[in-house]
Amino acid sequence: MHSVQFTAETSSNGVLERDFTVGGIPGVLWSPASGADRAPLVLMGHGGGTHKKAPAMTGRAHLLVTGCGFHVACIDAPGHGDRPRTAHDEQEIAVMQRAMAAGEPVGPIVVRYNAHLAERAVPEWQATLDALQELPEIGTEGPVGYFGLNMGTAIGVPLTAIEPRITAAVFGLFWPEPLAETAKQITIPIQFALQWDDEHIPRQSGLALFDAFASKDKTLHANAGRHKELPRFEADSAVRFFARHLGRAVTSPA
Amino acid sequence: MHSVQFTAETSSNGVLERDFTVGGIPGVLWSPASGADRAPLVLMGHGGGTHKKAPAMTGRAHLLVTGCGFHVACIDAPGHGDRPRTAHDEQEIAVMQRAMAAGEPVGPIVVRYNAHLAERAVPEWQATLDALQELPEIGTEGPVGYFGLNMGTAIGVPLTAIEPRITAAVFGLFWPEPLAETAKQITIPIQFALQWDDEHIPRQSGLALFDAFASKDKTLHANAGRHKELPRFEADSAVRFFARHLGRAVTSPA
Repeated sequence: MHSVQFTAETSSNGVLERDFTVGGIPGVLWSPASGADRAPLVLMGHGGGTHKKAPAMTGRAHLLVTGCGFHVACIDAPGHGDRPRTAHDEQEIAVMQRAMAAGEPVGPIVVRYNAHLAERAVPEWQATLDALQELPEIGTEGPVGYFGLNMGTAIGVPLTAIEPRITAAVFGLFWPEPLAETAKQITIPIQFALQWDDEHIPRQSGLALFDAFASKDKTLHANAGRHKELPRFEADSAVRFFARHLGRAVTSPA
Repeated sequence: MHSVQFTAETSSNGVLERDFTVGGIPGVLWSPASGADRAPLVLMGHGGGTHKKAPAMTGRAHLLVTGCGFHVACIDAPGHGDRPRTAHDEQEIAVMQRAMAAGEPVGPIVVRYNAHLAERAVPEWQATLDALQELPEIGTEGPVGYFGLNMGTAIGVPLTAIEPRITAAVFGLFWPEPLAETAKQITIPIQFALQWDDEHIPRQSGLALFDAFASKDKTLHANAGRHKELPRFEADSAVRFFARHLGRAVTSPA
């Protein structure tokens, strides 16, 4: 198996940020600057077209580190961030951009392309988790969460379904195809976000994906607004969800 | 107009609890033991068959007082708590109990009876708010919130629709009839709770009531579970909603 190779390190506001690679996959690990020993780990999946250090990822990571003392890791998805695009990636992105420019529905293309990316990303996430758990400050005993919306859900649902180390997850903002069938295998506590006036994902489709999870402990947060208008306070809410389920109190008013 | 008559006072864990009456209506006012001057006020409506000091009311009041430094008031609804039942109350309650015993749907009876109670309760709430705002520690300048589920929603929706002093509200766990038409007049920020597996309120009915609010800022929290299984953490979530909208930071990890 591959091990974590750290490539850069910075620190600010009590958060240690370390770039790493695992078998060539670039990632970032955020940790408390002190006292992080054997703290729980949250894996974060970024959205389509963004990357591991996009503002949403960095912001959520800081909330989780400073609010709960967790480790937080994010890796670039295939074809995203510092990773090269394949000819297939380029082709699918071109199809998506043409649909957007023409005002045509992008849903079917996103669903198809993200399912393809998930097939590539799931084993990468598993190898990354193996390697992160080899680090002495993480270890194999602590609980693991997963937090990803949009494409982060398209990758996170199949990952969570086959990965027993993940014991709590925040998902949302995706279509039920093809995830609903996989969601029926997931029984861990989940929190799920959808936008009530999503112009891409029909309301009943979002509700259907939430409904599909077999979890006895599941919460839907539906907010008024369009696809990209998820309120900022949902990040705080996710922090409290992980604090409840991964076993650390929120230490500041997030 | 009637003024607040205080009838009893206790204090515990930094919370001052004062029983009062306004024009014969019994209520309770919870306040911070110190530093409560001109703090925001949250009105709480209790559920059907309970009263102003039921555990849910006392628990939520303590969270709001200790977490945000707010004043919190609750009054007994007509026919509830320390208030006498009319012959009409007795008759409707008997009909409801017969339906429950027979395993028949109680929804239509609850909807009808609570609409009747709301007609009596709304002017009582307005008189209570008038009187509370005469207290020097509350005043007329501060923002006012409303928090009520079940019957607290049946009363709170018509109250909020005609009461411009209420600027943020938490509702939930009720049928759309007859509230949806009234909800269309409400534009303030709201948070709305429903139970995904509610055995009394069909899922689509709960969603329809949430949908009816005209508020641009509205959030649905739907949790897996039956009617009475609303998770405890929803009280914490309501505290943070009021902290955001009534303008005080949460001062402890609620």
